[in-house]
Amino acid sequence: MASACRARDSRLGLEIAGKALPEAAASTEILERFAREARAVAGEADRKGFAFPQEIELEGRQIVNNANTQEAPLTPGLVFEMLQAHQRTAALKAAIDLDLFRAVGEGPGDVASIARHCSASERGIRILCDFLTVQGVLVKESGRYRHTPTSATFLDPRSPACLASIAQFLSNPAMREPYDHLSEIVRAGRTILPGEGSVEPENPIWVQFAETMAPMMAPLCGPLGAAVLDGCKGPMRVLDIAAGHGLFGIEIARQNPQARVTGLDWAPVLRVALDNARRAGVQDRYEMLPGSAFEVDFGGPYDAILLTNFLHHFDWPTCVGLLKKVRAALKPGGRAATLEFVPDEDRVSPPIPAAFAMTMLASTAAGDAYTLSELTAMYREAGIGGVAAHPIPMSPHTVVIGST
Amino acid sequence: MASACRARDSRLGLEIAGKALPEAAASTEILERFAREARAVAGEADRKGFAFPQEIELEGRQIVNNANTQEAPLTPGLVFEMLQAHQRTAALKAAIDLDLFRAVGEGPGDVASIARHCSASERGIRILCDFLTVQGVLVKESGRYRHTPTSATFLDPRSPACLASIAQFLSNPAMREPYDHLSEIVRAGRTILPGEGSVEPENPIWVQFAETMAPMMAPLCGPLGAAVLDGCKGPMRVLDIAAGHGLFGIEIARQNPQARVTGLDWAPVLRVALDNARRAGVQDRYEMLPGSAFEVDFGGPYDAILLTNFLHHFDWPTCVGLLKKVRAALKPGGRAATLEFVPDEDRVSPPIPAAFAMTMLASTAAGDAYTLSELTAMYREAGIGGVAAHPIPMSPHTVVIGST
Repeated sequence: MASACRARDSRLGLEIAGKALPEAAASTEILERFAREARAVAGEADRKGFAFPQEIELEGRQIVNNANTQEAPLTPGLVFEMLQAHQRTAALKAAIDLDLFRAVGEGPGDVASIARHCSASERGIRILCDFLTVQGVLVKESGRYRHTPTSATFLDPRSPACLASIAQFLSNPAMREPYDHLSEIVRAGRTILPGEGSVEPENPIWVQFAETMAPMMAPLCGPLGAAVLDGCKGPMRVLDIAAGHGLFGIEIARQNPQARVTGLDWAPVLRVALDNARRAGVQDRYEMLPGSAFEVDFGGPYDAILLTNFLHHFDWPTCVGLLKKVRAALKPGGRAATLEFVPDEDRVSPPIPAAFAMTMLASTAAGDAYTLSELTAMYREAGIGGVAAHPIPMSPHTVVIGST
Repeated sequence: MASACRARDSRLGLEIAGKALPEAAASTEILERFAREARAVAGEADRKGFAFPQEIELEGRQIVNNANTQEAPLTPGLVFEMLQAHQRTAALKAAIDLDLFRAVGEGPGDVASIARHCSASERGIRILCDFLTVQGVLVKESGRYRHTPTSATFLDPRSPACLASIAQFLSNPAMREPYDHLSEIVRAGRTILPGEGSVEPENPIWVQFAETMAPMMAPLCGPLGAAVLDGCKGPMRVLDIAAGHGLFGIEIARQNPQARVTGLDWAPVLRVALDNARRAGVQDRYEMLPGSAFEVDFGGPYDAILLTNFLHHFDWPTCVGLLKKVRAALKPGGRAATLEFVPDEDRVSPPIPAAFAMTMLASTAAGDAYTLSELTAMYREAGIGGVAAHPIPMSPHTVVIGST
């Protein structure tokens, strides 16, 4: 190789083997733009990563995101990142299962000591910790790993705000396996799970939900309780439909010492709620109503009825039917309060509430993430008015309250 | 509910049922900071999403990212997003399998017409398209979906730059299933796949790699070819080890009409390379050397030897052994060129090259993403010097060239 040879200009070889370039006029124009933009940045010799969103978060400084705007260079980074996103779920789940975040918190944070704590190989721990550092849930300094504020607060089991247990519910086969068949689900328009999917009667996943998702729900309890009570301190009766862990009803009993709460859910689930009521010291004012929300007699009348994380599992007529039953069990002036992921009317924002419809497609026969106008219309159809939304600060959830 | 009752202050109920708060002094301090910050933003009544990275990209405008800095409010958004990240992979794969991006490109983009094209349900298509819009690979306007620049260029099969086929390789069971057993892999320090994992002799996934990953590699060919040739136009012989789709060697033959290229790979893989050589019109200067890079006689001597996407599958001694064999097959002054994901020396940046080590942990017995100092040391140990890195613009790949 004669060093006197002058270097040829770099160029992006966009031709794909076996594919004639001008297959479609429209895409030729796109391709030309791509090539033009690619050349424009070709001088950045030290650029080693696609310009994909992940990068922005990880530089440790404020970086403007230009993804998918006219001005930004176009790269396949977002496509590649989405196709590999499953690795991020697997890595976090593995780290939780291996008790890695406790090891990091206890220190000293070198690969050997973390590996010993986790009974794991050093190769595996080093690559996993590096990956978690790339994802922003660990920091690496001088070859040692330590917590980010996020991992210290939410992933280290020694933190009272640790919510690592939610990984157990979210990776439950009933919640995960449908995604291995998502094309089929989109074709059919319903979960591949049998019957009503995740809300099939007595589905054991709701015991796991009650046991593991409480840390995710705990921060919502205070705002929900305050919105439902609206300052009331007198004697009142509250029904908590699909109580699960029971935390929402329990919070009402804590905020109002004269409130009596009835939790409704499958019997095995209510055992978790009753345990939590005991721990909160409100078991004397906590009653259990085991069974299906659609079949059991609600009793009552109640001052308030909670429907938390429930309506989204069902289609419109089912929701309206249940809301009618709710209205019939409320005192005049009583309140129905749902806790929901409520997307904007465009259904594509904000990200978490909008994306939640996918979970309902994958795991139910006809559920959805309902907009406020849809929920309001359901309430009205059931004879419940005065509907108002109470978004919970710093969370993707909204409490929607109506009254009889 | 007396409306005269004054509303109580909202508060974030951070106590988790059944868990005493001050379990550890360190985490109490963290928790107090969390609660303080939570209160500071409690006034933002319309905040419905966690402050997680995804959100930043989706507003369609430039937003500063504060995740994991001291100033930002701390939320579990990143944890929740990581645990659900697998949905993004499943959704993109399903959309590709359903030919959804062609339907969007052809228009008119309403749910009914996309559902007809995809032979799918309207519920499924609406939820999938909304989800893809949240992820930034579709745009929704007035209830209709259209392409983003990213989806038009890289996901619509009508685009010559479409690389949707890479989803087939990346979701191959051999590439995907290890992530269902990642804890076990981290413990053992090696893939759960039998033998050498993805590089087990004659593994059929490399035929699929050759057939489907070419569009991902095509943009790298021009810069790689230019770096290897460095302007040379005379007669030369080039060996392309682990040729796969053959595009890199073929590009050398295209850039230098006097270059003769020998592709080395398993015989079924080389059939794909030869097809591509024919399409590129260089088949007269393309020879095939079927077999294992570790066993077959390289012949030669060569002016240049390519080792693209190969060294990362193996441990250090195996790489050095192979590089010695490469050196022995090079002319004096000949060049060895590897194409690799090369992380910085800290191994946690840039994101894509650093994260690639995870793929090697999951799918191989001892592979890694090697740093430039490691690759340089391997080269030197094999008697190859003058090592220089050539990062490929707008890609996460680096060409590392050394000479004898």
